[in-house]
Amino acid sequence: ADAEQGKAKSAICATCHGAAGIATVPVYPNLAGQQEAYLVSSLKAYKNKERNGGMAAVMQAQAAGLSDEDIADLAAYYASLK
Amino acid sequence: ADAEQGKAKSAICATCHGAAGIATVPVYPNLAGQQEAYLVSSLKAYKNKERNGGMAAVMQAQAAGLSDEDIADLAAYYASLK
Repeated sequence: ADAEQGKAKSAICATCHGAAGIATVPVYPNLAGQQEAYLVSSLKAYKNKERNGGMAAVMQAQAAGLSDEDIADLAAYYASLK
Repeated sequence: ADAEQGKAKSAICATCHGAAGIATVPVYPNLAGQQEAYLVSSLKAYKNKERNGGMAAVMQAQAAGLSDEDIADLAAYYASLK
């Protein structure tokens, strides 16, 4: 997983999760410093439409277009933020 | 919501999410300083069995027994941790 690549791919994520991974809106989660394996697991659950409820619909749309490599890179990037 | 009450109710949560809200296992999320409204939204999604995939089954069992007040208190507690 490549955190630099992840940063490059995170522009759209920053809209809700904030430029530094601190959410812009309280109903979205902070991602900064989150556990990398958890981020991968969550993104895959959204991609597989296993996660519903709350704002899940928004995230399902975002995750749908992500490859496993994108997911690994994004997870590495956000986990690396303090 | 009452963070002190939340702390009192968080003993079982600490097993996986850590005493200070930093996960003991990488596939579980850190909760310390997470957005309060997001924590409420996630706990309700687990309680309503809307969240599946990953470790969701474990969380559904945990959330099943929580009242809305428990959820609000736990969210306030974890959001208050830095």
